[in-house]
Amino acid sequence: MGRLTGGDPSLLRRINSAVVLHALRTAASPASPLAAAPTLTDLVKVTGLSRPTVEGVVEGLMESGLVVEAPAEEGEARRQGRPARRFRFRVEAGHLLGIEIGPHRIAALMADLSGRVTGSASVDVAEKAPADERLDRVRDAVADLLARSGVPRSGLRAVGVATPGIVEADGTVRLGTALPGWTGLPLGERLRRSFRCPVLVENDANAAAVAEHWKGAATGSDDVVFVLAGLSPGAGSLIGGRLHRGFGGAAGEIGALHLLGREATPEEVLSTTGEPLHPLDEAQVARVFALAREGDEGAAAAVERFMRRLVHDVAALVLALDPELVVVGGWAAGLSGVLEPLRAELSRYCLRPPQVVQSMLGEAAVATGALRLALDHVEKQLFAVESTVTARR
Amino acid sequence: MGRLTGGDPSLLRRINSAVVLHALRTAASPASPLAAAPTLTDLVKVTGLSRPTVEGVVEGLMESGLVVEAPAEEGEARRQGRPARRFRFRVEAGHLLGIEIGPHRIAALMADLSGRVTGSASVDVAEKAPADERLDRVRDAVADLLARSGVPRSGLRAVGVATPGIVEADGTVRLGTALPGWTGLPLGERLRRSFRCPVLVENDANAAAVAEHWKGAATGSDDVVFVLAGLSPGAGSLIGGRLHRGFGGAAGEIGALHLLGREATPEEVLSTTGEPLHPLDEAQVARVFALAREGDEGAAAAVERFMRRLVHDVAALVLALDPELVVVGGWAAGLSGVLEPLRAELSRYCLRPPQVVQSMLGEAAVATGALRLALDHVEKQLFAVESTVTARR
Repeated sequence: MGRLTGGDPSLLRRINSAVVLHALRTAASPASPLAAAPTLTDLVKVTGLSRPTVEGVVEGLMESGLVVEAPAEEGEARRQGRPARRFRFRVEAGHLLGIEIGPHRIAALMADLSGRVTGSASVDVAEKAPADERLDRVRDAVADLLARSGVPRSGLRAVGVATPGIVEADGTVRLGTALPGWTGLPLGERLRRSFRCPVLVENDANAAAVAEHWKGAATGSDDVVFVLAGLSPGAGSLIGGRLHRGFGGAAGEIGALHLLGREATPEEVLSTTGEPLHPLDEAQVARVFALAREGDEGAAAAVERFMRRLVHDVAALVLALDPELVVVGGWAAGLSGVLEPLRAELSRYCLRPPQVVQSMLGEAAVATGALRLALDHVEKQLFAVESTVTARR
Repeated sequence: MGRLTGGDPSLLRRINSAVVLHALRTAASPASPLAAAPTLTDLVKVTGLSRPTVEGVVEGLMESGLVVEAPAEEGEARRQGRPARRFRFRVEAGHLLGIEIGPHRIAALMADLSGRVTGSASVDVAEKAPADERLDRVRDAVADLLARSGVPRSGLRAVGVATPGIVEADGTVRLGTALPGWTGLPLGERLRRSFRCPVLVENDANAAAVAEHWKGAATGSDDVVFVLAGLSPGAGSLIGGRLHRGFGGAAGEIGALHLLGREATPEEVLSTTGEPLHPLDEAQVARVFALAREGDEGAAAAVERFMRRLVHDVAALVLALDPELVVVGGWAAGLSGVLEPLRAELSRYCLRPPQVVQSMLGEAAVATGALRLALDHVEKQLFAVESTVTARR
């Protein structure tokens, strides 16, 4: 239980600073009733703090570069006397990166402190590239993006990284079979050498769930399962609007369910020849789906096996979590004939079937989620009231 | 984001009252460093509130009957002058009920405001009893318990009820196939007619999860899946110490997974004759397990099918949620040969296998959880700081 009276003065200063900064940031959003650049009087009114407190806090925020005096608004100069000073939050005071490290591709997004994307870069990488080479490609993409954006490396406030695998809290990949050399890789530690700011590492499906909730197909729901549909599906879940990572960061790794009863691997399930498919060969998989559409019986049977598996895995997630919404992304989401059967089957055997929709962010989902995680981290530092209060419960 | 300055005075009064009551209640626990019945000076020190504020609050709490002046502690009278007044939280100022409505049995527990169990009652009910008859048995059990405890009905502050099925937020059973007439029953509304206090209805496995976390096998973990193992397993989950009900209250209803691919029903799975077992005939099931132990091949095969199903369902939960701990309860937990295979199989195909332990509360788990939910409700009213602050985030 929190004690709301007393408390130490430095905490109070931090809270007051966060309250003022939050007010300034909110003012900058188009929906705000405040002037885009409020005066001290505006800030006193909206925060409930005393004028001397607000003055002191704004002074400190200007020193740190997060707040700047704004030019007087048009028309104001005409009024009598000197116009009141106005202030605005400097969204350009820092930048964030969101990076996807995938099997075929490294994608990076840059944003300012408001979360607005200001640049992107992407480089291809060989599926079989060892970890060191893959990390070199990450550095290439970042260097390219920084150079083109004119943002110095020291201007980065946080970097979010998303990748396949079970990721520990410190950014180590506990298990990642999709990428060579990934299991056991201290990915966070390795990447921290390239940056002077915090580096946050997350599972790719978890990041995609966060992204769809931020600006994709799940903005209207706080209880979401995102399925990264591929040969072996992964999933990320939001519960009450928060990412559910699980006790060991392994929540949603439902692809392992087929190990039960020693069922066929996904690569065998979709095979039409008896030879298992290569797990990352998406073209080969698309070919099987195309053949099925053209009436090839072997391919149709393989696709049916694949769908049955996918529906089963998603159903297990839905029964365990009971989400409001399931968002399907990943390459398999783009294949026609995935969404409809999933909907039909889920409504048959889920007690309360969720809505099922396709990802809106598509290929950008994972990097966008990584960016959001970086933004979350920075917001927690800048607008620390919430975390301060909840930590004291 | 919470604003911690300003705010309305009635809210502040409520918070201060909750802070003082909480201090008094904490003082009453044996582990407290405070005197069991603190003085005003003690309360001023521990709450950080001013003396006049504490005096006013204590006055109000005494008027409401929640606090009473305690006799001076031994030895104090010998000191000079009049001893300082001492106060204590009246745990006997109200009572709570936790009720399990099961297929064979109604069980009720009574507790005081500290959560200490002060009485219990249980009545049998026919498996096929219609809803009205089952509710009559609930009223019988409650009347018996009240009479034996000498607690007037008006002394009840909250009643928790747990029962099989998917339960909506208002206490209506959305789906409950285990009990006749249960689906669609406005259970909360029906029971509220018998009580003048709030009645909270919850799914039985959810309640059991809460109970094991409170005073059972899961006191050491906040990330727990409780499996109510029977022919068709249900489950309840705690995530970060909080019950995860799901968007529609259906989380953990993993028993439905066998509907996928139109697999055999649980009653068929455990049959040795081809005739499905009766779903609630626990004796019949125990007989199959006993036969298997004696070497009967048909029974052994049936038990193996049953175990495979149970392990699969639990694995789906574990993969989706990644809990630290799985607690197995329900009648099947008592059958030898359930826990070990579950552990072995989970460690084979879960990426990060959780601990698997048996329920400590056994038959009492569901009613105990219902009691805890009633206590949670009352605590939220009495010690409202936390909910007030978090609601303002």
